[in-house]
Amino acid sequence: MQWYFVASLLTVLTSSQGILTTLSQSNGGYKYDYATVPFLAEVFKLLVSSMLLWREIQSLPSTRMTTEWRSVRLFPIPSIIYLVHNNVQFATLTYVDPSTYQIMGNLKIVTTGILFRLFLQKKLSNLQWMAIVLLAVGTTTSQIKGCGQTSCNSLFSAPIPGYLLGILSACLSALAGVYTEYLMKKNNDSLYWQNVQLYSFGAIFNMGRLALDDFQSGFEKGPWWKRLLNGYDITTWMVVLNLGSTGLLVSWLMKYADNIVKVYSTSMAMLLTMVLSLYLFDFKPTLQLFLGIVICMMSLHMYFAPPNMLVDLPSTAKAAPENLKEISVDRRNES
Amino acid sequence: MQWYFVASLLTVLTSSQGILTTLSQSNGGYKYDYATVPFLAEVFKLLVSSMLLWREIQSLPSTRMTTEWRSVRLFPIPSIIYLVHNNVQFATLTYVDPSTYQIMGNLKIVTTGILFRLFLQKKLSNLQWMAIVLLAVGTTTSQIKGCGQTSCNSLFSAPIPGYLLGILSACLSALAGVYTEYLMKKNNDSLYWQNVQLYSFGAIFNMGRLALDDFQSGFEKGPWWKRLLNGYDITTWMVVLNLGSTGLLVSWLMKYADNIVKVYSTSMAMLLTMVLSLYLFDFKPTLQLFLGIVICMMSLHMYFAPPNMLVDLPSTAKAAPENLKEISVDRRNES
Repeated sequence: MQWYFVASLLTVLTSSQGILTTLSQSNGGYKYDYATVPFLAEVFKLLVSSMLLWREIQSLPSTRMTTEWRSVRLFPIPSIIYLVHNNVQFATLTYVDPSTYQIMGNLKIVTTGILFRLFLQKKLSNLQWMAIVLLAVGTTTSQIKGCGQTSCNSLFSAPIPGYLLGILSACLSALAGVYTEYLMKKNNDSLYWQNVQLYSFGAIFNMGRLALDDFQSGFEKGPWWKRLLNGYDITTWMVVLNLGSTGLLVSWLMKYADNIVKVYSTSMAMLLTMVLSLYLFDFKPTLQLFLGIVICMMSLHMYFAPPNMLVDLPSTAKAAPENLKEISVDRRNES
Repeated sequence: MQWYFVASLLTVLTSSQGILTTLSQSNGGYKYDYATVPFLAEVFKLLVSSMLLWREIQSLPSTRMTTEWRSVRLFPIPSIIYLVHNNVQFATLTYVDPSTYQIMGNLKIVTTGILFRLFLQKKLSNLQWMAIVLLAVGTTTSQIKGCGQTSCNSLFSAPIPGYLLGILSACLSALAGVYTEYLMKKNNDSLYWQNVQLYSFGAIFNMGRLALDDFQSGFEKGPWWKRLLNGYDITTWMVVLNLGSTGLLVSWLMKYADNIVKVYSTSMAMLLTMVLSLYLFDFKPTLQLFLGIVICMMSLHMYFAPPNMLVDLPSTAKAAPENLKEISVDRRNES
């Protein structure tokens, strides 16, 4: 499977996720407990990965699976980072309004690039760094509040701790991604076995979160497992399956492509969601959305296009090998 | 003189032009007739160029000056294009509001690139085309009306003829620039002689405009030469000298650099003006200004940086010439 096919599928599914989630709301709220969705998505991913692992073992007895505790114990770490991230996110939102938070969220594109370079030792050309910055600039541009839009808080008026927490949040989000890529690539273990470990811990952590919510609310709505599927309809199930599927695609990309590919997929998904919303939810097209799309397309091309498509390479670059060959032939004839 | 020095100076002077013009206003209007400013600027440029030409002829009797009518008759053409452009601009503004017109004005960056390619036969790499589009996107981004700003017309709600005239206006503006570059480069004539021709016609056309204004107003304010300097103070003279100087720098760039350099200079000047206005006129910093500056800086780097600074060229590109040398030395020893 080609990485760009998986990346495009991830873009489409991530984009549908936003739209399905909006469609699953009624009167601006959820009829179901939204915290149950990620838990069920983890369970779905665990079931699919287990099945695929079982099939792989059947057909390929040499399937690689490292079961040492030294290796397994690394797999809850992404879940732990996300747990810390969620709390930082919560703290940030006490300082800044949601639209400023959304704008700051684009920072994670740049922090992912930096951590990708630092921890995974990947080299990026200057043009690729510029492309990453432009991707963040493009997504931010598309989110600028236009005139006439209700919320009108200045981005530059939040208290300093809000910005610091926003930066921390962007770093944690990048760290989780880069760490998962490290986990998936550190050995040749079966992707499905790595997924089973990742999602087992994911399911446990999500279960813990549901239990904690119950404790904090004093069990007034009953224990989570009794109200797990309350208010679920076909759209809610589609939200769960969609979230699970995007998770599986991200895992695949972490092993066979990288974090930057994932960042491009999800950024393009955000723009696609905005374009689809124009039709589905009767949003007004804005100049900033148009400009944001142009910037992100340029960035995509700058990052992924082969250098000789972008710049005119000096003619020696192509001519040289041939010259060398001809000369060596000459020499053989002479001797 | 290096072209980037002249280009930087043009940026600073163009930027001061906007600020000086604002400072020369009193109570939001002009005490003087604004139409006299470009006329006096043309006269200033003509005087300076004549003086420099005279000095050049004294020191260098071989100074090249084509005085045939076949060549001289081409020099009023830029003035004629600007005359048509001004009328198209006026017609456009009957369909669209000034802020939409300002946004559409950024199109001239792209049309300049296209006419530059078509008429001057200059080749641009894909990356340079992307840089030009990004420059237009960047300047447009900085001009997005934010929430809370008074004027709130949607860019997408103007009538179609307004857009068509806006495109025509961008093409005419680009054509004037590209044609001037053609004029300045078509032979090795002295720059000052070319300037003298250009500004003589410029002064005549501006005089014509002042006379036409008088006719249209029925001479109620008297003939233009009698009220030429009415209401002029030191700031007004600075506006004139500044406009004249930027014109001279543009001429220099047209002969020794090109239209794209000029477009970058004036786009950067627009951003510099906005940044200076934050301090001078107490404007509020906006997210879109910050994003626009980042995009334009990236574009500048993409356009002008040498390709090997941007992408990792294949190693053969650098190694090849040395290998070739060594082998040829080998052959000489063998024979």
